[in-house]
Amino acid sequence: MQAIAVDRDDRTPRVVTRPKPTPGVGEALVRVLRVGVDGTDHAVIAGDHGGFPEGASELVPGHEAVGVVEDPNGTALAEGAVVAPTVRRRPPSGTNAYFERAEPDMAPPGEYVERGIEGADGFMAEYVTSPAECLVELPSTLAPYGHLVEPVSVAEKAFELAAASRSSFDWRPESALVLGNGPLGLLAVAALDGMDAYDRLYCLGRRDRDDPAVAILDRFDATYVDSRETPLTDVPGAFEAVDLVVEATGHPPHAVESVAALAPNGVAALLGVPEGAHEASVSLAASHRDAVLANKAVVGSVNSNARHFDAAVDRLAAMDDGFLDALTTTVPAFDDPTAAFREDETTIKTAVEFASYEER
Amino acid sequence: MQAIAVDRDDRTPRVVTRPKPTPGVGEALVRVLRVGVDGTDHAVIAGDHGGFPEGASELVPGHEAVGVVEDPNGTALAEGAVVAPTVRRRPPSGTNAYFERAEPDMAPPGEYVERGIEGADGFMAEYVTSPAECLVELPSTLAPYGHLVEPVSVAEKAFELAAASRSSFDWRPESALVLGNGPLGLLAVAALDGMDAYDRLYCLGRRDRDDPAVAILDRFDATYVDSRETPLTDVPGAFEAVDLVVEATGHPPHAVESVAALAPNGVAALLGVPEGAHEASVSLAASHRDAVLANKAVVGSVNSNARHFDAAVDRLAAMDDGFLDALTTTVPAFDDPTAAFREDETTIKTAVEFASYEER
Repeated sequence: MQAIAVDRDDRTPRVVTRPKPTPGVGEALVRVLRVGVDGTDHAVIAGDHGGFPEGASELVPGHEAVGVVEDPNGTALAEGAVVAPTVRRRPPSGTNAYFERAEPDMAPPGEYVERGIEGADGFMAEYVTSPAECLVELPSTLAPYGHLVEPVSVAEKAFELAAASRSSFDWRPESALVLGNGPLGLLAVAALDGMDAYDRLYCLGRRDRDDPAVAILDRFDATYVDSRETPLTDVPGAFEAVDLVVEATGHPPHAVESVAALAPNGVAALLGVPEGAHEASVSLAASHRDAVLANKAVVGSVNSNARHFDAAVDRLAAMDDGFLDALTTTVPAFDDPTAAFREDETTIKTAVEFASYEER
Repeated sequence: MQAIAVDRDDRTPRVVTRPKPTPGVGEALVRVLRVGVDGTDHAVIAGDHGGFPEGASELVPGHEAVGVVEDPNGTALAEGAVVAPTVRRRPPSGTNAYFERAEPDMAPPGEYVERGIEGADGFMAEYVTSPAECLVELPSTLAPYGHLVEPVSVAEKAFELAAASRSSFDWRPESALVLGNGPLGLLAVAALDGMDAYDRLYCLGRRDRDDPAVAILDRFDATYVDSRETPLTDVPGAFEAVDLVVEATGHPPHAVESVAALAPNGVAALLGVPEGAHEASVSLAASHRDAVLANKAVVGSVNSNARHFDAAVDRLAAMDDGFLDALTTTVPAFDDPTAAFREDETTIKTAVEFASYEER
């Protein structure tokens, strides 16, 4: 079979030939349909995040996959089932409590590998194998959008942590602000639009108003906030203080500045991973005092588990196809890996196609 | 009756004569026993926090009170019941959703007054009246320590918010670090010592090891961390990364630095209120990245409601009398208000005595 890989010494993604994998006990063989590309993939390929499998000179990237079960191999999965694989797997050192509790997303660094990111090959291949419990089924109607299950699951976990942090009192959120209008930010807006609670949505970005990502916000009656005109800390004055902030950029000052953008009893969920160093002089007293006197919270969130994948499938199923079609702007075939990682002004989400879905 | 008051123009606490208050419908009359003094009182008296009742030239301070029901006035309370009053009351503008939900602690600034702090007279008087639902009963055996119900309730609310923030996954905390070894910090250590979860306790302060506050930590096998030797961010290297941080000093860098002191999936609860301004240059990228990649949380917490007072009564009842006796070092009579607000090296907690408890 063929796959996309990068070398330790040559970071240019290229097509490689690999033996078709054989599923082990408890594993199924999956024919890959599409694999989405996100900022983490760019960081992995550039060598800024994650790492190669132990002893390997190549890494197959890709962690946002959808495929079809080609060989259930004795597992409970049906042949032809459409599935999205979760990302974290047991580390070479063996299992641990987090995996035993089905919460690998809570495992600390070193106690997991991540397919396509950290210590394990990813899903940019014609075939992959996976333990059946790491394959989450979705309706076949969602096959064209299944590469979005993983990013939506990451947002679902953040929503879950944010809501849990407010669960000891009667929290009644009405407004939410998403920081970032990349694919994850737009999916977060779409997910929030699907929740009854949020009457008013805002999305902060740095794009001109004629950008296709900004146009997508109109579908949700979400207010676009150009951070070049209205910095995050000015949002309460220009619009309103919001009950929920979802940080999807990794811009370091956002973690502290979000506190100022929150309404009393609000929560900021941090999903974006800052790269590099960022020293800044900020008024720590003001945000600390504000957090205490107005019962505000900040929660970091990484990865997601099978429960969040299930929630993401339900969430995606409720989203408008027109939005989902507009989101995935770029669908290169896998034999053109350069196109997979090229971005221009019209790119919102890229999904690399390994096979087209055919109903069985 | 007599009370302690400060003037708008003269911040020196003095004894004033006031008419004995008459309870309104739904209110009881309470004979005050003791009123604790904390940092908030010092800030209120100095004019750095809170404010006077509308139109009043005097403010009676004190929000940590215990008393005896002198006249139930038709409420469900029994004459002679030992009670601790909650602090927040409906604002002059009338009731609001937070009070209707019995969660005044979640009301934003402007939607409450606080007795002895913000817009309402406090409890440093021989008699006070209060709505019966704001009077929490405690066993008469706790009467000498009842001035500690309010500060413990503040810690209980913070513990509740912290645990809620970790309730969406299987959190198994083992270690906790309290920042500050003033009365609130020591009460937090004592409360954590009473929980099964916490095997290892740490308390960070800036006192010499022969200080009586440090000696109290030995009762709980808590490790004292002198921040002059081991700054907060060095705690993981010198001791261990902890599952819970309880910030009880209001030192502004602590909100960000606590993230570095947390173990993966840990939470920092902020209780201390910073006064004034504090600009600092910090590595926001590192703490932001850490919060995301290790699922860390920071929750601010202020005030407490009747549910937390109930929890505090149970918590206090389980604490060792030897600790409680050692904590309240200073019990001046109310007719010596200067002594009430004087602090020296031997002072841990001051409680102003208005009457001694007599079993009926």
